[in-house]
Amino acid sequence: MAKTEITAEPGIPQIVITREFEAPRDLVFRAYIDPELIVRWLGPRRLTTRFEYHEPRDGGRWRYVSTSPAGDEHGFHGVFHGTPSVDGGIVQTFEYEGMPGHVALETVTFEETGGRTLVRSVSCFPSVEYRDDMIASGAEYGIREGDERLTELLAELQGR
Amino acid sequence: MAKTEITAEPGIPQIVITREFEAPRDLVFRAYIDPELIVRWLGPRRLTTRFEYHEPRDGGRWRYVSTSPAGDEHGFHGVFHGTPSVDGGIVQTFEYEGMPGHVALETVTFEETGGRTLVRSVSCFPSVEYRDDMIASGAEYGIREGDERLTELLAELQGR
Repeated sequence: MAKTEITAEPGIPQIVITREFEAPRDLVFRAYIDPELIVRWLGPRRLTTRFEYHEPRDGGRWRYVSTSPAGDEHGFHGVFHGTPSVDGGIVQTFEYEGMPGHVALETVTFEETGGRTLVRSVSCFPSVEYRDDMIASGAEYGIREGDERLTELLAELQGR
Repeated sequence: MAKTEITAEPGIPQIVITREFEAPRDLVFRAYIDPELIVRWLGPRRLTTRFEYHEPRDGGRWRYVSTSPAGDEHGFHGVFHGTPSVDGGIVQTFEYEGMPGHVALETVTFEETGGRTLVRSVSCFPSVEYRDDMIASGAEYGIREGDERLTELLAELQGR
Protein backbone atom coordinates (compact mmCIF):
# COMPACT_ATOMS: atom_id res chain seq x y z
CA MET A 1 0.00 0.00 0.00
CA ALA A 2 1.09 3.54 -0.68
CA LYS A 3 1.47 5.71 2.39
CA THR A 4 0.32 9.16 1.39
CA GLU A 5 1.04 12.19 3.53
CA ILE A 6 -0.40 15.55 2.55
CA THR A 7 1.00 18.59 4.34
CA ALA A 8 -0.48 22.09 4.02
CA GLU A 9 0.88 24.26 6.82
CA PRO A 10 -1.01 27.40 7.88
CA GLY A 11 0.49 30.54 6.34
CA ILE A 12 2.79 28.71 3.92
CA PRO A 13 1.47 28.67 0.32
CA GLN A 14 2.54 25.11 -0.43
CA ILE A 15 1.18 21.60 -0.53
CA VAL A 16 3.75 18.86 0.08
CA ILE A 17 2.73 15.30 -0.75
CA THR A 18 4.88 12.25 -0.02
CA ARG A 19 3.96 8.77 -1.16
CA GLU A 20 5.86 5.51 -0.96
CA PHE A 21 5.43 2.71 -3.46
CA GLU A 22 6.70 -0.88 -3.57
CA ALA A 23 8.37 -0.51 -6.95
CA PRO A 24 11.73 0.57 -8.40
CA ARG A 25 11.95 4.24 -9.23
CA ASP A 26 12.38 3.73 -13.00
CA LEU A 27 8.96 2.12 -13.06
CA VAL A 28 7.35 4.74 -10.81
CA PHE A 29 8.81 7.52 -12.96
CA ARG A 30 7.40 5.81 -16.07
CA ALA A 31 3.95 5.76 -14.46
CA TYR A 32 4.28 9.50 -13.88
CA ILE A 33 5.45 10.43 -17.38
CA ASP A 34 3.82 8.01 -19.83
CA PRO A 35 0.37 9.43 -20.62
CA GLU A 36 -1.01 5.94 -21.35
CA LEU A 37 -0.09 4.96 -17.79
CA ILE A 38 -1.03 8.29 -16.17
CA VAL A 39 -4.67 8.02 -17.28
CA ARG A 40 -4.88 4.61 -15.58
CA TRP A 41 -4.27 6.05 -12.10
CA LEU A 42 -4.63 9.85 -11.98
CA GLY A 43 -7.46 11.14 -9.80
CA PRO A 44 -10.61 9.46 -8.49
CA ARG A 45 -11.87 6.20 -10.03
CA ARG A 46 -15.23 7.67 -11.09
CA LEU A 47 -13.55 10.08 -13.55
CA THR A 48 -12.24 9.19 -16.99
CA THR A 49 -9.12 11.06 -18.05
CA ARG A 50 -7.78 11.67 -21.55
CA PHE A 51 -4.76 13.66 -22.67
CA GLU A 52 -5.19 16.24 -25.43
CA TYR A 53 -1.41 16.62 -25.68
CA HIS A 54 1.64 15.70 -23.59
CA GLU A 55 5.12 16.91 -24.56
CA PRO A 56 7.56 15.82 -21.80
CA ARG A 57 10.48 18.10 -22.71
CA ASP A 58 11.73 21.54 -21.67
CA GLY A 59 9.03 24.03 -22.65
CA GLY A 60 6.62 21.28 -23.71
CA ARG A 61 2.95 21.58 -22.84
CA TRP A 62 0.41 19.12 -21.49
CA ARG A 63 -3.36 19.16 -21.19
CA TYR A 64 -5.81 16.57 -19.97
CA VAL A 65 -9.56 16.51 -19.54
CA SER A 66 -11.37 14.57 -16.81
CA THR A 67 -14.95 13.49 -17.50
CA SER A 68 -17.51 12.54 -14.84
CA PRO A 69 -20.12 9.79 -15.34
CA ALA A 70 -22.67 12.61 -15.96
CA GLY A 71 -20.47 13.97 -18.76
CA ASP A 72 -19.08 17.02 -16.95
CA GLU A 73 -15.61 17.90 -18.22
CA HIS A 74 -12.77 19.54 -16.30
CA GLY A 75 -9.59 20.61 -18.08
CA PHE A 76 -6.10 20.96 -16.65
CA HIS A 77 -2.95 22.14 -18.37
CA GLY A 78 0.62 23.19 -17.77
CA VAL A 79 4.14 23.54 -19.13
CA PHE A 80 7.17 21.32 -18.42
CA HIS A 81 10.21 23.25 -17.14
CA GLY A 82 13.30 21.22 -17.93
CA THR A 83 13.09 17.78 -19.54
CA PRO A 84 11.64 15.27 -17.05
CA SER A 85 14.06 12.55 -15.92
CA VAL A 86 14.36 9.93 -13.20
CA ASP A 87 17.25 11.82 -11.59
CA GLY A 88 16.02 15.40 -12.07
CA GLY A 89 12.35 14.67 -11.50
CA ILE A 90 9.49 16.60 -13.06
CA VAL A 91 9.04 20.38 -12.81
CA GLN A 92 5.83 21.72 -14.29
CA THR A 93 3.22 24.39 -13.94
CA PHE A 94 -0.36 23.34 -13.24
CA GLU A 95 -3.60 25.16 -14.00
CA TYR A 96 -7.13 23.99 -13.33
CA GLU A 97 -9.18 25.61 -16.09
CA GLY A 98 -12.13 26.08 -13.71
CA MET A 99 -9.99 28.66 -11.87
CA PRO A 100 -8.41 30.62 -14.74
CA GLY A 101 -5.44 32.81 -13.88
CA HIS A 102 -4.42 30.64 -10.93
CA VAL A 103 -1.16 28.85 -11.57
CA ALA A 104 0.79 26.48 -9.32
CA LEU A 105 4.37 25.27 -9.77
CA GLU A 106 4.93 21.57 -9.02
CA THR A 107 8.22 19.74 -8.45
CA VAL A 108 8.12 15.92 -8.25
CA THR A 109 11.17 13.89 -7.20
CA PHE A 110 11.77 10.13 -7.03
CA GLU A 111 14.04 8.49 -4.45
CA GLU A 112 14.61 4.72 -4.21
CA THR A 113 15.61 2.88 -1.05
CA GLY A 114 15.68 -0.91 -0.91
CA GLY A 115 13.33 -1.45 -3.83
CA ARG A 116 10.79 1.09 -2.55
CA THR A 117 10.35 4.52 -4.09
CA LEU A 118 9.49 7.69 -2.24
CA VAL A 119 7.74 10.24 -4.43
CA ARG A 120 7.78 13.80 -3.10
CA SER A 121 5.65 16.46 -4.73
CA VAL A 122 5.95 20.10 -3.73
CA SER A 123 3.37 22.50 -5.17
CA CYS A 124 3.84 26.20 -4.57
CA PHE A 125 1.05 28.71 -5.02
CA PRO A 126 1.02 32.51 -5.43
CA SER A 127 -1.05 32.82 -2.23
CA VAL A 128 -2.25 30.85 0.78
CA GLU A 129 -5.84 31.65 -0.28
CA TYR A 130 -5.38 29.92 -3.64
CA ARG A 131 -3.70 26.94 -1.94
CA ASP A 132 -6.68 26.69 0.44
CA ASP A 133 -9.13 26.92 -2.49
CA MET A 134 -7.37 23.98 -4.15
CA ILE A 135 -7.72 21.90 -0.99
CA ALA A 136 -11.35 22.94 -0.51
CA SER A 137 -12.11 21.87 -4.11
CA GLY A 138 -11.64 18.25 -3.07
CA ALA A 139 -8.11 17.72 -4.40
CA GLU A 140 -7.21 15.56 -1.37
CA TYR A 141 -9.79 12.89 -2.18
CA GLY A 142 -8.50 12.60 -5.75
CA ILE A 143 -4.91 12.40 -4.57
CA ARG A 144 -5.59 9.59 -2.09
CA GLU A 145 -7.69 7.55 -4.49
CA GLY A 146 -5.15 8.20 -7.25
CA ASP A 147 -2.43 6.76 -5.02
CA GLU A 148 -4.49 3.62 -4.40
CA ARG A 149 -4.91 3.20 -8.14
CA LEU A 150 -1.20 3.78 -8.77
CA THR A 151 -0.31 1.15 -6.14
CA GLU A 152 -2.53 -1.33 -7.98
CA LEU A 153 -1.09 -0.38 -11.38
CA LEU A 154 2.52 -0.77 -10.18
CA ALA A 155 1.68 -4.21 -8.77
CA GLU A 156 0.13 -5.21 -12.10
CA LEU A 157 3.11 -3.91 -14.10
CA GLN A 158 5.40 -5.98 -11.85
CA GLY A 159 3.27 -9.11 -12.41
CA ARG A 160 2.09 -9.28 -8.78
CA MET B 1 10.86 58.25 -6.09
CA ALA B 2 9.75 54.64 -6.04
CA LYS B 3 9.30 53.16 -2.59
CA THR B 4 10.43 49.57 -2.83
CA GLU B 5 9.67 47.08 -0.10
CA ILE B 6 11.13 43.59 -0.33
CA THR B 7 9.68 40.99 2.03
CA ALA B 8 11.15 37.51 2.48
CA GLU B 9 9.77 35.97 5.65
CA PRO B 10 11.63 33.12 7.38
CA GLY B 11 10.15 29.72 6.51
CA ILE B 12 7.90 31.02 3.71
CA PRO B 13 9.27 30.28 0.21
CA GLN B 14 8.23 33.61 -1.29
CA ILE B 15 9.58 37.02 -2.10
CA VAL B 16 7.01 39.82 -2.12
CA ILE B 17 8.05 43.14 -3.66
CA THR B 18 5.89 46.25 -3.62
CA ARG B 19 6.84 49.42 -5.45
CA GLU B 20 4.94 52.65 -5.99
CA PHE B 21 5.41 54.86 -9.02
CA GLU B 22 4.13 58.34 -9.89
CA ALA B 23 2.53 57.27 -13.16
CA PRO B 24 -0.79 55.90 -14.40
CA ARG B 25 -0.98 52.12 -14.45
CA ASP B 26 -1.37 51.83 -18.25
CA LEU B 27 2.06 53.39 -18.59
CA VAL B 28 3.62 51.32 -15.81
CA PHE B 29 2.20 48.14 -17.36
CA ARG B 30 3.66 49.16 -20.73
CA ALA B 31 7.09 49.57 -19.10
CA TYR B 32 6.74 46.01 -17.75
CA ILE B 33 5.63 44.37 -20.99
CA ASP B 34 7.31 46.23 -23.88
CA PRO B 35 10.78 44.69 -24.29
CA GLU B 36 12.17 47.95 -25.71
CA LEU B 37 11.19 49.67 -22.45
CA ILE B 38 12.10 46.75 -20.14
CA VAL B 39 15.76 46.79 -21.23
CA ARG B 40 15.95 50.48 -20.26
CA TRP B 41 15.27 49.81 -16.56
CA LEU B 42 15.62 46.10 -15.66
CA GLY B 43 18.40 45.34 -13.19
CA PRO B 44 21.55 47.25 -12.22
CA ARG B 45 22.85 50.11 -14.39
CA ARG B 46 26.21 48.46 -15.07
CA LEU B 47 24.58 45.58 -16.99
CA THR B 48 23.34 45.72 -20.57
CA THR B 49 20.24 43.66 -21.26
CA ARG B 50 18.96 42.33 -24.57
CA PHE B 51 15.95 40.13 -25.31
CA GLU B 52 16.43 37.03 -27.47
CA TYR B 53 12.65 36.59 -27.68
CA HIS B 54 9.58 37.92 -25.89
CA GLU B 55 6.10 36.54 -26.64
CA PRO B 56 3.61 38.18 -24.22
CA ARG B 57 0.71 35.74 -24.68
CA ASP B 58 -0.56 32.60 -22.96
CA GLY B 59 2.15 29.96 -23.34
CA GLY B 60 4.59 32.44 -24.93
CA ARG B 61 8.24 32.34 -23.93
CA TRP B 62 10.74 35.04 -23.10
CA ARG B 63 14.52 35.06 -22.72
CA TYR B 64 16.94 37.87 -22.04
CA VAL B 65 20.70 38.05 -21.56
CA SER B 66 22.47 40.52 -19.27
CA THR B 67 26.05 41.42 -20.11
CA SER B 68 28.55 42.93 -17.66
CA PRO B 69 31.18 45.51 -18.69
CA ALA B 70 33.73 42.62 -18.65
CA GLY B 71 31.58 40.71 -21.15
CA ASP B 72 30.17 38.08 -18.76
CA GLU B 73 26.72 36.96 -19.89
CA HIS B 74 23.85 35.75 -17.70
CA GLY B 75 20.70 34.32 -19.26
CA PHE B 76 17.17 34.28 -17.85
CA HIS B 77 14.06 32.75 -19.36
CA GLY B 78 10.48 31.84 -18.60
CA VAL B 79 6.97 31.21 -19.92
CA PHE B 80 3.93 33.51 -19.74
CA HIS B 81 0.87 31.89 -18.16
CA GLY B 82 -2.21 33.70 -19.40
CA THR B 83 -1.96 36.72 -21.69
CA PRO B 84 -0.55 39.71 -19.78
CA SER B 85 -2.99 42.59 -19.28
CA VAL B 86 -3.34 45.73 -17.17
CA ASP B 87 -6.26 44.20 -15.26
CA GLY B 88 -5.03 40.62 -14.95
CA GLY B 89 -1.37 41.46 -14.48
CA ILE B 90 1.52 39.25 -15.55
CA VAL B 91 1.96 35.62 -14.50
CA GLN B 92 5.19 34.01 -15.61
CA THR B 93 7.80 31.47 -14.65
CA PHE B 94 11.36 32.65 -14.13
CA GLU B 95 14.63 30.72 -14.43
CA TYR B 96 18.14 32.01 -13.96
CA GLU B 97 20.23 29.86 -16.28
CA GLY B 98 23.14 29.89 -13.80
CA MET B 99 20.98 27.76 -11.50
CA PRO B 100 19.44 25.24 -13.91
CA GLY B 101 16.45 23.26 -12.67
CA HIS B 102 15.39 26.00 -10.27
CA VAL B 103 12.13 27.61 -11.32
CA ALA B 104 10.14 30.40 -9.66
CA LEU B 105 6.57 31.49 -10.41
CA GLU B 106 5.99 35.25 -10.46
CA THR B 107 2.70 37.16 -10.35
CA VAL B 108 2.80 40.93 -10.97
CA THR B 109 -0.28 43.12 -10.42
CA PHE B 110 -0.87 46.83 -11.05
CA GLU B 111 -3.18 48.98 -8.92
CA GLU B 112 -3.75 52.72 -9.49
CA THR B 113 -4.82 55.18 -6.81
CA GLY B 114 -4.89 58.92 -7.47
CA GLY B 115 -2.48 58.83 -10.39
CA ARG B 116 0.05 56.63 -8.57
CA THR B 117 0.51 52.96 -9.33
CA LEU B 118 1.33 50.25 -6.83
CA VAL B 119 3.11 47.29 -8.42
CA ARG B 120 3.05 44.10 -6.38
CA SER B 121 5.20 41.15 -7.37
CA VAL B 122 4.88 37.79 -5.63
CA SER B 123 7.49 35.16 -6.49
CA CYS B 124 7.00 31.68 -5.14
CA PHE B 125 9.79 29.12 -5.00
CA PRO B 126 9.81 25.32 -4.59
CA SER B 127 11.83 25.69 -1.36
CA VAL B 128 12.98 28.27 1.18
CA GLU B 129 16.59 27.28 0.39
CA TYR B 130 16.20 28.25 -3.27
CA ARG B 131 14.49 31.51 -2.28
CA ASP B 132 17.43 32.27 0.04
CA ASP B 133 19.93 31.43 -2.73
CA MET B 134 18.20 33.95 -5.00
CA ILE B 135 18.49 36.66 -2.34
CA ALA B 136 22.12 35.74 -1.58
CA SER B 137 22.94 36.03 -5.31
CA GLY B 138 22.46 39.80 -5.07
CA ALA B 139 18.95 40.03 -6.53
CA GLU B 140 18.00 42.77 -4.05
CA TYR B 141 20.59 45.23 -5.36
CA GLY B 142 19.38 44.76 -8.91
CA ILE B 143 15.75 45.17 -7.88
CA ARG B 144 16.39 48.45 -6.02
CA GLU B 145 18.55 49.94 -8.76
CA GLY B 146 16.05 48.74 -11.37
CA ASP B 147 13.29 50.60 -9.54
CA GLU B 148 15.32 53.81 -9.54
CA ARG B 149 15.83 53.44 -13.28
CA LEU B 150 12.12 52.72 -13.85
CA THR B 151 11.19 55.84 -11.86
CA GLU B 152 13.46 57.88 -14.14
CA LEU B 153 12.08 56.23 -17.29
CA LEU B 154 8.45 56.84 -16.25
CA ALA B 155 9.26 60.53 -15.59
CA GLU B 156 10.87 60.79 -19.04
CA LEU B 157 7.92 59.10 -20.77
CA GLN B 158 5.59 61.59 -19.06
CA GLY B 159 7.73 64.50 -20.22
CA ARG B 160 8.85 65.47 -16.71
